[in-house]
Amino acid sequence: MSKTIIAIDAMGGDFGPEVTLAGVARAALAYPDVRFELYGEEAAIRQHLAKHKGLESVSTIIDCEMSIAMETKPSVALRQGRKISGMWKAIESVKNGGASACVSAGNTGALMAMSKIILRTLPGIERPALAGIWPTVKGESVVLDVGATIGGTPSQFVQFAVMGAAYAKTVLGVLTPRIALLNIGVEDMKGTDAVRDAADLLTRSDLNFTGFIEGTGIGQGEADVVVTEGFTGNVALKTAEGTARQLGEYLRQAMSSSLMSRIGYLFARSAFAALRERMDPNAANGGMFLGLNGIVVKSHGSADIEGYATAVTVAIEAAEARMVDTIAADIEKMQALLDDAWVGVLD
Amino acid sequence: MSKTIIAIDAMGGDFGPEVTLAGVARAALAYPDVRFELYGEEAAIRQHLAKHKGLESVSTIIDCEMSIAMETKPSVALRQGRKISGMWKAIESVKNGGASACVSAGNTGALMAMSKIILRTLPGIERPALAGIWPTVKGESVVLDVGATIGGTPSQFVQFAVMGAAYAKTVLGVLTPRIALLNIGVEDMKGTDAVRDAADLLTRSDLNFTGFIEGTGIGQGEADVVVTEGFTGNVALKTAEGTARQLGEYLRQAMSSSLMSRIGYLFARSAFAALRERMDPNAANGGMFLGLNGIVVKSHGSADIEGYATAVTVAIEAAEARMVDTIAADIEKMQALLDDAWVGVLD
Repeated sequence: MSKTIIAIDAMGGDFGPEVTLAGVARAALAYPDVRFELYGEEAAIRQHLAKHKGLESVSTIIDCEMSIAMETKPSVALRQGRKISGMWKAIESVKNGGASACVSAGNTGALMAMSKIILRTLPGIERPALAGIWPTVKGESVVLDVGATIGGTPSQFVQFAVMGAAYAKTVLGVLTPRIALLNIGVEDMKGTDAVRDAADLLTRSDLNFTGFIEGTGIGQGEADVVVTEGFTGNVALKTAEGTARQLGEYLRQAMSSSLMSRIGYLFARSAFAALRERMDPNAANGGMFLGLNGIVVKSHGSADIEGYATAVTVAIEAAEARMVDTIAADIEKMQALLDDAWVGVLD
Repeated sequence: MSKTIIAIDAMGGDFGPEVTLAGVARAALAYPDVRFELYGEEAAIRQHLAKHKGLESVSTIIDCEMSIAMETKPSVALRQGRKISGMWKAIESVKNGGASACVSAGNTGALMAMSKIILRTLPGIERPALAGIWPTVKGESVVLDVGATIGGTPSQFVQFAVMGAAYAKTVLGVLTPRIALLNIGVEDMKGTDAVRDAADLLTRSDLNFTGFIEGTGIGQGEADVVVTEGFTGNVALKTAEGTARQLGEYLRQAMSSSLMSRIGYLFARSAFAALRERMDPNAANGGMFLGLNGIVVKSHGSADIEGYATAVTVAIEAAEARMVDTIAADIEKMQALLDDAWVGVLD
């Protein structure tokens, strides 16, 4: 097996190389054979790299003359950052076979646009999807699309299902992922036409399709892969994040409301630390663009060191499990069914 | 002012009259002048009513020969329950001016279908919406549509905004509600065409439109009225419920994980009781069908006594504040803008 190399958009994210390099260094501890390409301003990278001696020996710095700002519109980022930005060069390295995967905490829209242009979608995939890892009471699930595109046809939902299942198999280690379609009711009659037609297609496929799932079922871990279109998926993901923040606030208020509750907090503080960790969005950090000819992991812009390390770990695991090959092979197997669906549209 | 009378679909909900009558009795304590019409099986109602002496004197029982089951499809419920079911008769009483509002914890689809047929939409309203009350760190917000219909045009979003604002004014007592559109980003370029066009219309209206809101902002109380279409709204609401349940489970596990944490729990138990109350979905119970010629409040099927009492309270407050008149007047004021939008569609 060839050496795994991860391309890092080192300047990306709200905190830049201070956090990204520390995150890479932490992930590197568990994977001593993996090498890293660090894209960005050489001086800034050298300064922070000096703090992580272990990382220095397994890294190559590639100096880039510009970085994409977090708030730049994707169209502008493409025009300004084409060929010369760290983000572009990191993705290009995946395309050229230099790196096995790339990781960025930078501008999501720009990363998506560049990834599509450089890597292109796999044969049989119409649109890439952004997949998120969702912590559940049973472990973790994959939810997609959480915001790469808006809307979707039945065939696209099936493609998302194949991509999500490959992610669950290779990164989460679920042998036969349970796939469900996000809907507003579990009766057959509910939902949009696209969702209902997608359910018909999935029922006829070889995938382990378990039917519809409602918003309440995601956190309960009722499915390993939750398929939806990008608008709904993004709203669901952000609503869950908002609710977790809200309840964290309630908990903080409750625990400081009286002397007794403050004493209680002191006794229970290790339990609270464990709870905070489970509620921490960084623990499940590492969205992935699926459906491309290469692996691109999107870390949350505000991810801390641990969050960024998780994103790097996801990239390493997906690369070493050859996730892209799995998706390509699984989509090919589905081609007859998908062609059929397409003919159905023309009828 | 004429006496407020609330029509109760007493057999509705997972627990029937045992919970509904106890809930009505609890709500009645705070509103001694309000009268109730109790629709359902007379024998069953009498049996439970005997436990609530105070309620008996302000109630009239209307015996109904059938009740709509929770799992019946709306089309079947309409066919079987037309004219003769407690649900139908309770809504009909609002139509005939007997009751000022009706409350049901029964089959949501059937309640929606019957309400539309019996009460019809207000002039200028194309579609009714189901509005939910959403607890936030700042208080409560109105979110609509949370599942009455799927999809929506820009004009319909504007109508939802007017309806939601009237609800916030009359039931939540917010003088000038801040209205926001649920979207997947706050930049102008994001979101569906319908959402962006709705934002243009709302900007030109007299409403207090504050722009887009993301899923994370709902629980932070960034808006008093959150406007969205029914599929997304339903997924958001149920995802928030699921996340609250999930975090409640994490908290329970954390608090029973060690002797120290159990001791901490004992010290802090009144704080935990307060927290549980804030996390309790029943506290904000009382979805409302808006946009109809009358007030129909939908209680959660699994609501407990307190939850049902909240739904009844919402019905009383909306009726006494003459919410339907407010919506009708506000929509009329918007008619020029909405006609304009309609002409825009034809261009």
